[in-house]
Amino acid sequence: MSKNTKVLIVDDNLLNLEIVKGILEEEYSLEFAKTGTEAIEKLKVFKPDIVLQDIMLPDIDGFDVLAFIKNTPFLKNTKVIMVSALMGVEMRLKGYEMGAHDYIVKPFEDDELKAKIDIFSELVHSHEIKEAFNYTIEALSRAAEACDEETGNHIVRVNEYSYTLAKDSGQDEDFCNEIRCFAQMHDVGKIHVPMSILNKKGSLSKEEFVEIKGHPIYGAKIIGESEQLRMAKEIALYHHEKWDGSGYPSGISGKEIPLSGRIVAITDVYDALRSERSYKPAFDHKKTMTIFKDGDDRLDPEKHFDPELLSSFLSNNEKYESIFESLEGEGV
Amino acid sequence: MSKNTKVLIVDDNLLNLEIVKGILEEEYSLEFAKTGTEAIEKLKVFKPDIVLQDIMLPDIDGFDVLAFIKNTPFLKNTKVIMVSALMGVEMRLKGYEMGAHDYIVKPFEDDELKAKIDIFSELVHSHEIKEAFNYTIEALSRAAEACDEETGNHIVRVNEYSYTLAKDSGQDEDFCNEIRCFAQMHDVGKIHVPMSILNKKGSLSKEEFVEIKGHPIYGAKIIGESEQLRMAKEIALYHHEKWDGSGYPSGISGKEIPLSGRIVAITDVYDALRSERSYKPAFDHKKTMTIFKDGDDRLDPEKHFDPELLSSFLSNNEKYESIFESLEGEGV
Repeated sequence: MSKNTKVLIVDDNLLNLEIVKGILEEEYSLEFAKTGTEAIEKLKVFKPDIVLQDIMLPDIDGFDVLAFIKNTPFLKNTKVIMVSALMGVEMRLKGYEMGAHDYIVKPFEDDELKAKIDIFSELVHSHEIKEAFNYTIEALSRAAEACDEETGNHIVRVNEYSYTLAKDSGQDEDFCNEIRCFAQMHDVGKIHVPMSILNKKGSLSKEEFVEIKGHPIYGAKIIGESEQLRMAKEIALYHHEKWDGSGYPSGISGKEIPLSGRIVAITDVYDALRSERSYKPAFDHKKTMTIFKDGDDRLDPEKHFDPELLSSFLSNNEKYESIFESLEGEGV
Repeated sequence: MSKNTKVLIVDDNLLNLEIVKGILEEEYSLEFAKTGTEAIEKLKVFKPDIVLQDIMLPDIDGFDVLAFIKNTPFLKNTKVIMVSALMGVEMRLKGYEMGAHDYIVKPFEDDELKAKIDIFSELVHSHEIKEAFNYTIEALSRAAEACDEETGNHIVRVNEYSYTLAKDSGQDEDFCNEIRCFAQMHDVGKIHVPMSILNKKGSLSKEEFVEIKGHPIYGAKIIGESEQLRMAKEIALYHHEKWDGSGYPSGISGKEIPLSGRIVAITDVYDALRSERSYKPAFDHKKTMTIFKDGDDRLDPEKHFDPELLSSFLSNNEKYESIFESLEGEGV
């Protein structure tokens, strides 16, 4: 991947530029600037992933260039390595305070420079992989919706509700971020349920209901055993469990049900009530909240949901209403 | 995520340990060692993501500990930052040569240490995300197979064949690695084709065949517009195009068909011929190669495949046979 990494080398010394070129050109895509002004021009066009930034320059200095990078939105992922012979502790600290990522002192050795650029290059690609990862999670989640083009924002809304409920009930940032990413995977197992059953109007036969009830187990199988997808698997497997043990597929109860599953159990039902389904019209927020408080022929909130989560959900119910409204669109 | 990052701090000076602890303990999970021997004991149990490794120690030195890390398979992703007051260029180079990732000179400033550990922590998590990404790509690919548990190794084999064909036809390492990751996604669109059609024994009706022919377009939609998944989308969309323009869904021909699609067109057919399908038994390598040379009632290799790729495939056919054998298992 490394030739994909773009490195801008800023140094007013031509010999230095040649040396650095020799060390990096085989594996990296390079551009050069000999003054601060030239550096800023190159930054705008070349949009480098990494800048090797000499501090002492004939016109503006390296800190000015660093400030430009930090104030330019399309350079927000650019990594900056400050370079100088005169690198006292104050200058290093000034660089770090301004958002530089590392420094290197001249004269440096080839291996040293190469090691640093390699590390930062890996880091640059890691952002791209993270984006592609998020994209693939979403593709997998959307693939499970019965009708690809028409799904609307159900999965996105469930992510946002779940983040909010986790946050309001005092979970730490890591947990909240993780559930925001993985709540959307709750129904991936529906990929293996025939569409004729998922979209059936009218009531389901016993066999059809058994088939639908298989989706948490199918989902857990699809997601599999990756440690990084542990929460996604939990959610797929446990989002239909109920507090009193009357849910499926395991029939576990109370805090035996993982927290992530208890959260998505609430947020998924809220979105189902707000959306049109083959067996019911869409309900407005007010009617939905009445059902969340008093129940109806299908839902008994006190028996089905974690009481603490339910209480947080009810007290902050306007947040869920506003998420639904800002991300409206037909859910499946 | 940062509390998930485990940092081992090796330093024989108790005061230094306390200082480093103060800087890092809020965000990182820490362990400490005051001698090289103790460091090795802690490495075995704590399995740190990052080691902050002082060089001068009372027993064995920091380079010995570094050597232990480099020779221990379960520490292969551990990042090592060498620390010393006496950091001449020879010592730094020795560290880099032995596989250290960075160094820091005592006395260092709080911000400096923090910046370095933050960068490495990000890098550690990026490996995990990359693993999770690969895992999710595979989950999405497997989800498209009609019968989750029984799929065998079809998708894994197509990855390996495609890598080999790309390599043998002179593509660069980046292209080869990418196709090895994404070839498996060629059939994701089958998620939206009813299983009753995919698994039908006997011939398909015209409508059913139209439905099956939709899978490249469904697949491209599922994969979507991410730049990082561009090749995956190409493969999904174009792996049923033919050299003479008689394929689907676009009917493009020759080099209009992206290279990735032309490669998977060959490797997917090879695997289909080697595997049992609802309409045919599994063929052995010899019979399959006869079809690849002379064609049969369904396949006209000269009209269907890129002639250069076909020629590479035929000359290296024993490689594909051995991939099939080493990864045997019923394909779908």
